[in-house]
Amino acid sequence: MPETVIINDVGPRDGLQNQPRLLTPAQRLELIEALIAAGLKHIEVGSFVSSTAVPAMAGTAEVVTGLPAVAAACYSVLIPNMKGYELAKAAGARSVTMVLYGSEGMARKNVNMGKRRAEEVTAEILQHARQDGIRVSAAIAVAFECPYDGPTDSAEVERITDAFLQLGADEVVIADTIGAAHPGQVRALTTKLVSRHGSERLSCHFHDTRAMGLANVFAALESGIRKFDTSIGGLGGCPFAPGASGNVATEDVVMMLHQMGYDTGIELRALVAAAELAKNLTGTAPGGRAKPWLQRFLQR
Amino acid sequence: MPETVIINDVGPRDGLQNQPRLLTPAQRLELIEALIAAGLKHIEVGSFVSSTAVPAMAGTAEVVTGLPAVAAACYSVLIPNMKGYELAKAAGARSVTMVLYGSEGMARKNVNMGKRRAEEVTAEILQHARQDGIRVSAAIAVAFECPYDGPTDSAEVERITDAFLQLGADEVVIADTIGAAHPGQVRALTTKLVSRHGSERLSCHFHDTRAMGLANVFAALESGIRKFDTSIGGLGGCPFAPGASGNVATEDVVMMLHQMGYDTGIELRALVAAAELAKNLTGTAPGGRAKPWLQRFLQR
Repeated sequence: MPETVIINDVGPRDGLQNQPRLLTPAQRLELIEALIAAGLKHIEVGSFVSSTAVPAMAGTAEVVTGLPAVAAACYSVLIPNMKGYELAKAAGARSVTMVLYGSEGMARKNVNMGKRRAEEVTAEILQHARQDGIRVSAAIAVAFECPYDGPTDSAEVERITDAFLQLGADEVVIADTIGAAHPGQVRALTTKLVSRHGSERLSCHFHDTRAMGLANVFAALESGIRKFDTSIGGLGGCPFAPGASGNVATEDVVMMLHQMGYDTGIELRALVAAAELAKNLTGTAPGGRAKPWLQRFLQR
Repeated sequence: MPETVIINDVGPRDGLQNQPRLLTPAQRLELIEALIAAGLKHIEVGSFVSSTAVPAMAGTAEVVTGLPAVAAACYSVLIPNMKGYELAKAAGARSVTMVLYGSEGMARKNVNMGKRRAEEVTAEILQHARQDGIRVSAAIAVAFECPYDGPTDSAEVERITDAFLQLGADEVVIADTIGAAHPGQVRALTTKLVSRHGSERLSCHFHDTRAMGLANVFAALESGIRKFDTSIGGLGGCPFAPGASGNVATEDVVMMLHQMGYDTGIELRALVAAAELAKNLTGTAPGGRAKPWLQRFLQR
């Protein structure tokens, strides 16, 4: 029996929020349906954030309402605060992702509060979610490097991981938000975390900004991590910073995992079709780097 | 003291031979000089092959004659057979790279002989080179997968490596010629080879076709490999197969190595300038994927 790796596609959230073209809820659902058709079960479908700050995520309630009913599907939404939690709950979301911070600078920039305060807020939401039977994923942003504060102290990431697993988070995501990590440090940190907590409630989130996305996935795999955030077509990055890459592309990661003998439950041909759809909907050249090869391969 | 990793830039050979635009020997020397200016000491400067088959490599003798005299520089040329060896020797080459084959199909396609026959020919040239005081690198092509024969038997790669190190090759290069390897198999094979032979006379050569180039470099590093072939700007691939990627880009590999704390003796700013030159000379978008990030980083 091949070992299973879970892929959580964050393209409809982390990907789309960074595209210049705004999609309608119907278009966002079309992309989500293409992912479901490819066999993805874990999808981050949107966020409940200020639509002034992130216009691409306006209408997430409509997206949540329209989600296809699929057995074992885990649709999550990102929420920044209690207000976002209430909106998510009201829309019927069954899984929320909350953001913690490896650095002070990113916390101030993103939610205008200190990182410790962000942890308190998140811990409070976590208690509500547990009472409401809503699944909670806690993502630690800039877990390796912060664009404002520089290298992140890995002891801080360990502390936050320990604390939130202790508090009952269903999952902690180690997020290399800006794609700055190298595989040596990924290996070192994830080895420590897996040895302490097992891999069941840990996940990793990499961006491909410095071309080390798959190297980091491999490093985490070697440590025992068996769940990854990815983005269809490598959607993401910043539209105003040419060359900035998005999340590591779902098709790149799935291709590597399949070659390595892991089972993801994902069908590559349908996945490449979803990447094409992502490209057509957003009008951007997607970042998935193995797609040209995959397309030739699948035509054989 | 940081540990050293040796980078051998094969762009002026493996890169340029796959570009649609033919460069003059003077232009090829300009690229080589830019690499030297960036601190590279190991460069594959060209090949002595049929100029009918590979027009881009016509004039390699002129390139060899014009090479800048640099302390500790190791300029190598690729040769396919005894005729190539004689031409390289006559031109004054001090280091040659010969090609061995992991598969029968690639040997037949590339040199129109069986792989065992190719080994005999190479062993014979090796003897001459040792007598002539010329350094010999033996590269095992399609060491992981062959486009004609499929997956390569790693036992064959081990056999060939053992045999040519035994015969006195100064180096054996494990080459993923078509960029098909995944980091798990790279790790497995290189761990075996390093445990048997040490890393002193081993090198790895990866392409980025399936986006796993840096993952494979990391996997080999973990096994103890400390020498890599790379290509400035990621030059390479096939001009007639859109999306086919070239060798793993020198700037991507060097950036990762520096982040990981290795010393390469290479200066990143001058290296990015060399990648720009490679782009301008060839008129192709280079494959180096970290370059946009590096350019922004270096402007800070």
